[in-house]
Amino acid sequence: MKIGIVGLGLMGGSLGIALKGCGSSYHIIGLDHNPEHRTQALTLGLVDEVVSRQEEIIGCDVIFLAIPVDGIITTLQSLKGIKAECTVIDLGSTKAKIVSSVPAIIRKNFVAAHPMTGTEKFGPFAAVEKLYEEKVVVLCNLEESGEHQQKTALKLFRDIGMKIVFMRANEHDRHAAFISHMPHALSFSLANAVMRQEEPRSITALAGGGFRDMSRIAKSSPDMWEDVFRQNKINLLTAIDHFSEELEKCRRMVMEERWEALNVWMQDANKLHDIL
Amino acid sequence: MKIGIVGLGLMGGSLGIALKGCGSSYHIIGLDHNPEHRTQALTLGLVDEVVSRQEEIIGCDVIFLAIPVDGIITTLQSLKGIKAECTVIDLGSTKAKIVSSVPAIIRKNFVAAHPMTGTEKFGPFAAVEKLYEEKVVVLCNLEESGEHQQKTALKLFRDIGMKIVFMRANEHDRHAAFISHMPHALSFSLANAVMRQEEPRSITALAGGGFRDMSRIAKSSPDMWEDVFRQNKINLLTAIDHFSEELEKCRRMVMEERWEALNVWMQDANKLHDIL
Repeated sequence: MKIGIVGLGLMGGSLGIALKGCGSSYHIIGLDHNPEHRTQALTLGLVDEVVSRQEEIIGCDVIFLAIPVDGIITTLQSLKGIKAECTVIDLGSTKAKIVSSVPAIIRKNFVAAHPMTGTEKFGPFAAVEKLYEEKVVVLCNLEESGEHQQKTALKLFRDIGMKIVFMRANEHDRHAAFISHMPHALSFSLANAVMRQEEPRSITALAGGGFRDMSRIAKSSPDMWEDVFRQNKINLLTAIDHFSEELEKCRRMVMEERWEALNVWMQDANKLHDIL
Repeated sequence: MKIGIVGLGLMGGSLGIALKGCGSSYHIIGLDHNPEHRTQALTLGLVDEVVSRQEEIIGCDVIFLAIPVDGIITTLQSLKGIKAECTVIDLGSTKAKIVSSVPAIIRKNFVAAHPMTGTEKFGPFAAVEKLYEEKVVVLCNLEESGEHQQKTALKLFRDIGMKIVFMRANEHDRHAAFISHMPHALSFSLANAVMRQEEPRSITALAGGGFRDMSRIAKSSPDMWEDVFRQNKINLLTAIDHFSEELEKCRRMVMEERWEALNVWMQDANKLHDIL
């Protein structure tokens, strides 16, 4: 089976490694508009071959779109030459705008997926062997995909060791705003607030595990996250408002020295322990 | 050398393990008001012996205070029976109120320290072998400590593999507000916002590394953090205000669809990469 991967960064590169190592006989062709990324992907062994033009992957049995979410929408408009049985799978962090943008002529070919995994790093050198293993992938509006494409996508994600969750695209975007997109907004804000107020040497000296963990995703790709914030604008703003309400509660309890109430509010937060 | 450790939780327990394993011949006596903690600390081998009353450690050569910061202030008032050469070292996350509360009669005995390490876990079972190794410890207003006590504290922290940084207590509290205390307020707020809006099963399904990392310290001890927030109230409120300003910038850029400005602001946050 010939599998094309569009985008050879963290997600696409790691997918290449996972598919090459999963025991099935897949031939992996990587496409990236950046010539350096193509060379790196080949040197690092992320894929079996690299190509530079979309026409060279259009004949594949499966095409993964591992690029920023605005690029996914653009690329979907130009995929009309694919084979009838082709399965096109996107790995974007938003789902509603992507699903609604799929041209009717390739709707059966298309499967909307969001693997809940990643790191703050990007580019081919960020690719790691077990990025997908044991992680959740959310498949959205799967009943709109063709039967063959549903089966193919399920097999591929199971091949690389993922746990599958089904969801409506709108529902996914609201959840993802709270659990992924808004936390990125917080991390970017934290990094900027601290760097504007503190000298680098104080940050290096004092940063413990808490700050390191909370600021890690502030190192994520601006181009990727600009697109995500644009596509999930309304849900993101709602999630930021809910967060701000909690932080304001905290600020007022501290300001008004309502320590017992603060302690109870922290105990509420501790309940996350029962979930994660 | 006899070393007493008051408080046998994450910090005190891990300190016991580190001191027992560092090659010097220390005898470690643990004191904890909680009988279960004493039994656990002994069973886990965190200390050489446990005692239940302060009088039983008052004759030690070194006394570490590994308890919440309000408890440190209370305990310092009752330590007047210590030996002239005794070194009393606190491990609290705030420093200004503690340093100013030390009774004059034991000021030379006292060394103010803040090890920049920890996890979200607490109690004797949270103790781990290498909590302190290669981490920074901030020593505050060290010139106010006696010469013998300065030497003793430096030797002990070096024995357990720590890197030493010197700072004024006020300066420490301002930095710690930005780099440790405010991030805890964010994590507690994030956990509460998400748990109030999302079902546990959505959280479990969708939580990737970003959310897990950002919400980890929301599981920290409310009793410990209530005290820290109380003692560092003004700096904490200032840090929360600076954070809120950045988050509001982000919210407005998204609302007003100023995507280029948002991308630049994210690139600013990426600069943390050059520091950490």
